[in-house]
Order: sequence, then structure tokens, then C-alpha cells
Amino acid sequence: MTEIPEPITAPPEKEELAGRLAKVRAIMEEREIDYYVSFDPVNIYYLTNFANNVHERPFILVLPRKGTPTMLCPLLESSHVKTRARCDLEYVTYYEVPSPKGQNWFDVYKTLIDNKAKVGIESALPVGVANETPGKHVMVDIIDDVRLVKTAYEIGRTVHACSIVNQGHRKLLEITRPGGMEILIYGEVVREMMGKTLMEIPQANLIVSKFVGAVWPPSLSHDPHIVPTPITTMEEGGPHVSIVAAQVDGYGVEVERTFFLGRVPKQARRPFDVVMKARALAYEMVKPGAVLEEIDRKVRQVLIDAGYKERILHRTGHGLGITGHEGPYVALGDSRKLVPGMLISIEPGIYIPGEGGYRHSDTVLVTETGYIRLTDAPDTLEGLTIAL
Amino acid sequence: MTEIPEPITAPPEKEELAGRLAKVRAIMEEREIDYYVSFDPVNIYYLTNFANNVHERPFILVLPRKGTPTMLCPLLESSHVKTRARCDLEYVTYYEVPSPKGQNWFDVYKTLIDNKAKVGIESALPVGVANETPGKHVMVDIIDDVRLVKTAYEIGRTVHACSIVNQGHRKLLEITRPGGMEILIYGEVVREMMGKTLMEIPQANLIVSKFVGAVWPPSLSHDPHIVPTPITTMEEGGPHVSIVAAQVDGYGVEVERTFFLGRVPKQARRPFDVVMKARALAYEMVKPGAVLEEIDRKVRQVLIDAGYKERILHRTGHGLGITGHEGPYVALGDSRKLVPGMLISIEPGIYIPGEGGYRHSDTVLVTETGYIRLTDAPDTLEGLTIAL
Repeated sequence: MTEIPEPITAPPEKEELAGRLAKVRAIMEEREIDYYVSFDPVNIYYLTNFANNVHERPFILVLPRKGTPTMLCPLLESSHVKTRARCDLEYVTYYEVPSPKGQNWFDVYKTLIDNKAKVGIESALPVGVANETPGKHVMVDIIDDVRLVKTAYEIGRTVHACSIVNQGHRKLLEITRPGGMEILIYGEVVREMMGKTLMEIPQANLIVSKFVGAVWPPSLSHDPHIVPTPITTMEEGGPHVSIVAAQVDGYGVEVERTFFLGRVPKQARRPFDVVMKARALAYEMVKPGAVLEEIDRKVRQVLIDAGYKERILHRTGHGLGITGHEGPYVALGDSRKLVPGMLISIEPGIYIPGEGGYRHSDTVLVTETGYIRLTDAPDTLEGLTIAL
Repeated sequence: MTEIPEPITAPPEKEELAGRLAKVRAIMEEREIDYYVSFDPVNIYYLTNFANNVHERPFILVLPRKGTPTMLCPLLESSHVKTRARCDLEYVTYYEVPSPKGQNWFDVYKTLIDNKAKVGIESALPVGVANETPGKHVMVDIIDDVRLVKTAYEIGRTVHACSIVNQGHRKLLEITRPGGMEILIYGEVVREMMGKTLMEIPQANLIVSKFVGAVWPPSLSHDPHIVPTPITTMEEGGPHVSIVAAQVDGYGVEVERTFFLGRVPKQARRPFDVVMKARALAYEMVKPGAVLEEIDRKVRQVLIDAGYKERILHRTGHGLGITGHEGPYVALGDSRKLVPGMLISIEPGIYIPGEGGYRHSDTVLVTETGYIRLTDAPDTLEGLTIAL
């Protein structure tokens, strides 16, 4: 596979979801887990296609090793779940939070699991829910692990999501000019992406559709996780750093670029080139079997050798899927290997106070032979210098 | 207090946050808790004014009973925390998720708390974090409890937030017409509210600013927690049910109405009147000392007596504050009493399949003598029947 796969916009078929569940159950079998409890809305969405607005009324998916999974949800929401869930589910409802004694969610929940069972729980499970969970607990992130390698369907959805951020990024470069205000750029880019999404997926689930189109101007770009205020203003020159990210009807992707308005300050050329070199090395290493932390180590070395050791603030990349940030991590400490079907970002960066930040990020699919970059934006200094 | 208090748009002063912390510590003292650990982003925001984008890198606030609290956060985010936090904090950072052995967040976290300490943890604390927390754990939601009664500052912020949703709701009634599409109404109403927010709070924190302006047309309004699709279309007649809700630079409020376009179907008059009667009774009971579940019980009885027992899907109301949904609950099973400074919604409703839903919701402040309704929208059948 060297061509970008076809985009998919349709909701998942029952078989797709059954396949995901089968993978979870294979691990349950192997670990002799009788029930697995999922509370994380992301994991519930992955297995059912139902996304809940998180509030004080719990939704809990109880997966027995065999038989139909049970969705415990508020009465008020059961029709909402049924509208979106695309797999077989038993429904058990509770009335409200709180409810009169004996009718609370935990009263009902306790009846769903055998006291003697071995029960797998997520590391994200709230202590308050864990305390009401019967059986002997084993903390193990089975669904998160299954999510690491994407199915052909998920890849098709991701290809579509990338077409949305690609268009958003084109719009961003088109409208960002010196003096331009963050909130106006953000509004235009988000509208562009949301409009395209709704044209192509009129029934998109807005609970899992989110759009971000922001620029860190040179005064902020050395600080990648600060949040620009609405009145942050763009400047001539650079480096500006864009973040265009979206969750498109459930599928999260990103594209980010370092760019310049009108002119490239002299001191920007070297760090720009060094980051390009680090990035090129990262791509060279992206193939099945590559150890994630080895990629990070070698990419870091390029930055360190160029004298930027103190200017590295983050890992080389992270996984993407139904969230925009998840395992695996292209980071020291992640000793897992790349597998075809993984989706990762490649985004080595350096950040120089008083000058600015340098980072390009793309959404990248690991294939049998290497990788395909699914996002598309200029990546030469010329292409990233906007004529005024 | 019978007048609406003055709106406040400024960020909290250090003294405001110190006052909140002192209340938390008074409970720690009483319960002999040595450290309290907060992971819930809402609680961290309440005590520090810093809101984190939730991702896989944990932020943990460790409160010793005396001395300066410690914020454990990713290196990448420490300047972001410092930009927004408005209280004294010690900072302890870790590098990345994951990090090389010995340098992970949990390695650092473990050094912050004495092994022999009595440690209070939130019910929302993820099991994976609880397992790394030293000491003897007591699950107790101290910060959530302190948040129940609002300070004068919080009330002023809420009054301002209500002015935003009030304007959003006026816009919604102005533009909603038969054939109108959900996404266009939503877009206009959200833009109206976001525009006003940014004019009045140019430095608003977008992480804690969210806006919703939606209408459930009669084909959906019987199902209050279903989510309309973008192409859901408005109809002549009704009942339509609006939800205009916002978190305005951190403060969550809502206003909701049952309304009609052009004409009121004959069968709608009785349920509309019954809900108005239930709502009036609820307001009569809102005063300090009233037991929350008693209000719910009596309000329900009005609906039950009118023959709508099977048409009640939810409690009479919920608390609001820095979230739009929190304790206390005007619900069977909440035996707490109203206290001046609490903020609640009053929103009894009934839902009739094939006909539609009936619910009005307002954001209501409990005062020394009764209540003040902070949101403002028509609440007569005439006022809620839009001439076409």
C-alpha cells in the first residue's frame, strides 16, 4: 500500500464493531477475565458507536466474556444510546442521579456482575465506580490496547478526517496575515472544516466532532502548550506555528506547520533546517518493527547535536485514532514496535524563548513497507513563506 | 437581596482563591486529612483558575493541610499553568508520557506525599492515579462539597454568564422559523454568545468557554437527551424546546423554553399548563432550609396528579457553578437543604411520545429570603408563541 486509501464517511457496520469486540474478548480469554468494565467514553464509543456527553450520570459498558454486552445508562438517555449504537446491546437503566435508596446507578450496577468474577477495569475508571464494581479487579487497558492498530474501516475514516484538516490548513495559510486576530482566524478555519464535514456527513455526531484552527505567532510559538488569547495578533515574519486539528465524526487527526509572513528572520533559518532534518530522519525510520523509543532517541540526537538539547520540550510523536492523542507514543520509554495500521504523528520540535518555535506535524499511517502521510501541507521554507 | 447582583467579568483575585482553599482545608482539618489530591480538572480550576486541556499527560494538584499546594504537571505545560493560575503554587514537572524509567509522572508524584499520610482522594480520581498515590486513602469529595455554596465573586460571574445566555436565547427565538435547520440556528446563536463574551472578556479562557444553542422540534422534543442532527428541521406549531447553555470564561448557566411557531396545537395546552403549575410550585418552595428531595417530590406530585406519571423523565433541577451540571440536585434522594448562595436550575418537564416535550429551565440563585431568577426569557404561552 503506497496510495492513500479511499476515504470512508459511512457509520460502522455491525461486523466492524463485532470485530473490535472479538479482539477485546480474545485478550479477556487469554487473561481469564470474566467481565470487562468500560467507563471511558472513548472506549465505549469505539465498541458501540455511541458517544456520551459526559456528565454526572454514569454510563457503564459491561462486557461479559461471552454473550451480549450490557449498557448501564440513565433512563433519560436510553433512546439516545439506541439511536447511535450500532451493535447488539442489552439495556439496563437507572432513574436519576441521585435516586431514592435502592434505585441508584450503583444498586443496579452491582446486579450485573457476579461477586466471584475476575473483572478487568480501565486505569481511567473513577475510584467511585471501581468501589461499586463487584468481583476481583485487575487493572488492564484492554480496549486501549486493541485500539492501537486500526482496521481498514478506521483508516478510511481517518483518510476522510485528514481531507478536512488539509482544507482547514489551506484556509489558515490563506487568511493569516500580520495584524490578523486569533479569534477571527480560528472562526474562519473552524467554519471551513465544519462546513465540509456537514456537507459530507450530514448526520455527523456533534458530540464527537471538534475543530481547532489556531496560530501561535512568534511571540508565543516558543511555548507550544500555552493557549493564545482571542486577541492574540499575528506578526510580520515568524516563526508562526499553526495547529489545525479535528475530530471528524469520531476520528481525530492533525496537521501543523511552522510558517512565515512575508519574510524569514535570519536567525530562523538554522533551527528551521535542523527541525526539517530531524523530521526527515524520523520518516526514514517509520516502518513495521521499528521501536518507538529508538525513533525518538535518534531524532532527539539530531536536535542535540545541533546544540538544541535544552530546546526540546516534547516527544517526536503520539498515536491518533478516535482521539487526537493516544498510544502508541514516539517517545523515550515506549518500547513497543510499529505495526502496520498504526496511526502516529511525526512532529519533532524545538522552542527558543525570544525567537519562537519550530514544529511540523502530520498524521501518518504505518503500512506494510513504511508509511503514508495522510495530511498534506507545504513543507519547504519557500512553501511556508507567505507572500504579503 | 432581591435585586440581581452586579455582573463580574474580571478574573479572581488571589484572596478569592485563598478563601476557597481555606474552606477545603477546614474540612481537611476536621477529617484529619494530611493531603488532598485533586485530579478533576474542574476542581483544579476552582482552586487555581488554571484549566487544563485533558489529555494523556496528567495534572495533579496536591494540597497539604498547611503550606503551599503543589501542581504536578508536564514540563511542556508549566508556563501555561503559570499564565492562568492566580494563587501560590509550587511547581513540580515531569518530562513526557511516557518518560524513561524513573522519570515518569508517577515517579515524581510518589515523592510529593508521605507514605504514612492520610490522603483524601476524589471519587472521580482514576484508578491508575489512585494506585500511584502514597498513604492511606479516604475517598471524600471535599472540593465538590465546598463548591456547593457560591461566593459573592462566583455569583457575580454567574450573573454575567446569564446575560450571555439571555442574549443567546433572544437570538434563538428571533431566528427559529419553520423549515429552519438546526445547524444554522446553532451557528447563529453560538456566534452571538461568543461575540458578546469576547467583547466583554477579551482574555476569556477558551478552554472553559463553551456555547450551545439548540432546538428540539416537536418530532424530537419528547426525547430530551437525544441529540438533534445538523439537518434536523424546525416545524410549524410545537412544542419546540430550546436549550441555550454556556460556560462563559468558566461559569456555566442555562436557559430553556418550550415554544411554538405560529400556532399552538390544541393538545399542547394542557401539558403546557401543567408544567407551568409544577414550575410555579417549585419556585414557591425555593428558599433556605428547603429539603431538595421534598421540592422534587411535591413538584412530581403535580405532574402525577395530572396523569403524567409515566411522562416524567428527570428530576426537577440540578446545581450549576463552574460546570453546568453539578450538585446539589433537586431530586428524590438528595436530602440536603438549600442554602443561600446555591445556584440551581428549576426545570420540571414532561415528555409525550408523538406530541413532544414541555420544560422551561432557568438558572436560579438561592438568597436569604427566597430566590432570584438570573436568566430571563418569556414564560407565558403568549410570549412563547412566535408570530410567523
